[in-house]
Amino acid sequence: MTWSSTEVRLAQRPDGYPDESTWSIERTEVPDPGPGELVVKVQHISLDPAMRGWLNDVRSYIPPVGLGEVMRAFAAGEVVASNNDDFAVGDVVSGVFGVREYALCDGQGVTRLDLDVAPATTWLGALGMPGMTAWFGLTEVGRLKDGETVLVSAAAGAVGSTVLQIAKARGCRVVGVAGGPEKVAWLKEIGADATIDYKQGGVLKQLRSAAPEGVDVYFDNVGGEVLDAALANLRRGARVVICGAIAGYNEQKLPEGPRRYMSLLVFRASMTGFVVMDYEDRYPEAVSAMSKMIADGTLTPRETVLEGGVEAFPEALLGLFRGVNTGKLLLKL
Amino acid sequence: MTWSSTEVRLAQRPDGYPDESTWSIERTEVPDPGPGELVVKVQHISLDPAMRGWLNDVRSYIPPVGLGEVMRAFAAGEVVASNNDDFAVGDVVSGVFGVREYALCDGQGVTRLDLDVAPATTWLGALGMPGMTAWFGLTEVGRLKDGETVLVSAAAGAVGSTVLQIAKARGCRVVGVAGGPEKVAWLKEIGADATIDYKQGGVLKQLRSAAPEGVDVYFDNVGGEVLDAALANLRRGARVVICGAIAGYNEQKLPEGPRRYMSLLVFRASMTGFVVMDYEDRYPEAVSAMSKMIADGTLTPRETVLEGGVEAFPEALLGLFRGVNTGKLLLKL
Repeated sequence: MTWSSTEVRLAQRPDGYPDESTWSIERTEVPDPGPGELVVKVQHISLDPAMRGWLNDVRSYIPPVGLGEVMRAFAAGEVVASNNDDFAVGDVVSGVFGVREYALCDGQGVTRLDLDVAPATTWLGALGMPGMTAWFGLTEVGRLKDGETVLVSAAAGAVGSTVLQIAKARGCRVVGVAGGPEKVAWLKEIGADATIDYKQGGVLKQLRSAAPEGVDVYFDNVGGEVLDAALANLRRGARVVICGAIAGYNEQKLPEGPRRYMSLLVFRASMTGFVVMDYEDRYPEAVSAMSKMIADGTLTPRETVLEGGVEAFPEALLGLFRGVNTGKLLLKL
Repeated sequence: MTWSSTEVRLAQRPDGYPDESTWSIERTEVPDPGPGELVVKVQHISLDPAMRGWLNDVRSYIPPVGLGEVMRAFAAGEVVASNNDDFAVGDVVSGVFGVREYALCDGQGVTRLDLDVAPATTWLGALGMPGMTAWFGLTEVGRLKDGETVLVSAAAGAVGSTVLQIAKARGCRVVGVAGGPEKVAWLKEIGADATIDYKQGGVLKQLRSAAPEGVDVYFDNVGGEVLDAALANLRRGARVVICGAIAGYNEQKLPEGPRRYMSLLVFRASMTGFVVMDYEDRYPEAVSAMSKMIADGTLTPRETVLEGGVEAFPEALLGLFRGVNTGKLLLKL
């Protein structure tokens, strides 16, 4: 048998925000799996800030999505046909399946999900790439020590909310930055000691009051004004972890750099970038630790699940940049 | 007896470049040393880019020079009177004596110079604060490994020329950035494998050709365009050492930040600031290693010595920012 699959392809590279001209929505027939292959019926598609970067034809940590190719996406779904001994029909799996209804793949990079630990949506969030990003960014790149003061931006997002809770579990004082009263209220629910609503303006002033003695680790997901405020309010020996810069991802020219970078000298601080895939060999240790945190209640994963077919993907992606989500943003097919 | 001493005091904090209104030149009488004190006749005053920062009334790694105070300066000179058992009349010493002809001090932070190793001028350069900055910035902050590719800006300056030669002695490929054909020619003399004349423009293009496989360590003394070019041309795991940002020191507003800082993520790189005084306990090991390098010819210190009284200090300091010097800039009284 074959499967009729709707998929979202990259039609044209966007300047600024992606729009209708960016995508083409097409139907294709997915054939029976060949030797070693399997077919996955995609059920949840992950929406990630990094997706915007994958659309640019520039040298980066990963090649861009090619024109005419199916949009790259992490996703979860169910195996509906398999000629691969590692996967059986009915298994729920995750992988880089792309924005499509059915994915034919060879099993490389596909993981069977243990639904006794958490639902599939969480395996795309706190136990997936965002969770790994939070864990290795904070503990390895940020060299977090128990009891330090941690600042995290986009703290109501998939990565940020996990960073916040890992740091709390390590006995840290945590300041979370988010936009709007609802998100800020949620940050308090999940343990933030202080919060900053960047939409209120005066981020530096808010930060000085939230962390009067400065910040040991700043986990930066946004760049821009929050990064500059953090640089002005570090503690000696601070580590700034550069995870992302969502504030500038849709700018048509390179956004301004952090004006206060010379604070690195004053505070003997460092600013370090990383790519979570470099820690792939060590994902199991993070999954194991974070599964325990979910079980004992110190980590409360949250997902915002949009409903719609793959046709809803372009709008869902824009929603991510507008910040419609609390926790991990997913599109349910 | 007393000594009549001319000294340069901070009269008014400058906006932008210091000018006549910044300084007042005064005469004072220096009395006989009290118990534990000594009087130093200053012979060489060190001109350092950091001096500009000391004039700003902002929180930094060291308090600013106060209004009405003698301008802070490293200097070397001869002991002309002593009630301190550690120092005898005739000793040649260095310390933070300030911009003045005679300094009365208690011996704290004063070092007797071994003129058999090098002349006093070198003890203010390659074996002084600039040399310590080069040594610890490169080896500790930059974690230099033998054979790596090193980029250094202001490479004809006191710190940069020492960085260049230490890296060469470690078997590195070194690219030096300086302004103008004479300086660039000198960089080749002291071992640069490739050079960039930033006054020719197109720094990034020059850098790609000088280090086509990218840079492992960038020792940044200037900020601005060179920093952005370096960030665009790093190797994976690169370390950017933030030592200074002379390009912006006299700007009236905060200069732009490094636009390409997100390269830190692409290249899994770090950018780290430091203050050499933190390594004070370890200066002896650096002095010992670098003295050997001078003896065996792998380190050729160079100083540009301006002549004039302390009255020549304001103009000499401007000269530093115009780049009149090759190697360490000193004012000889």
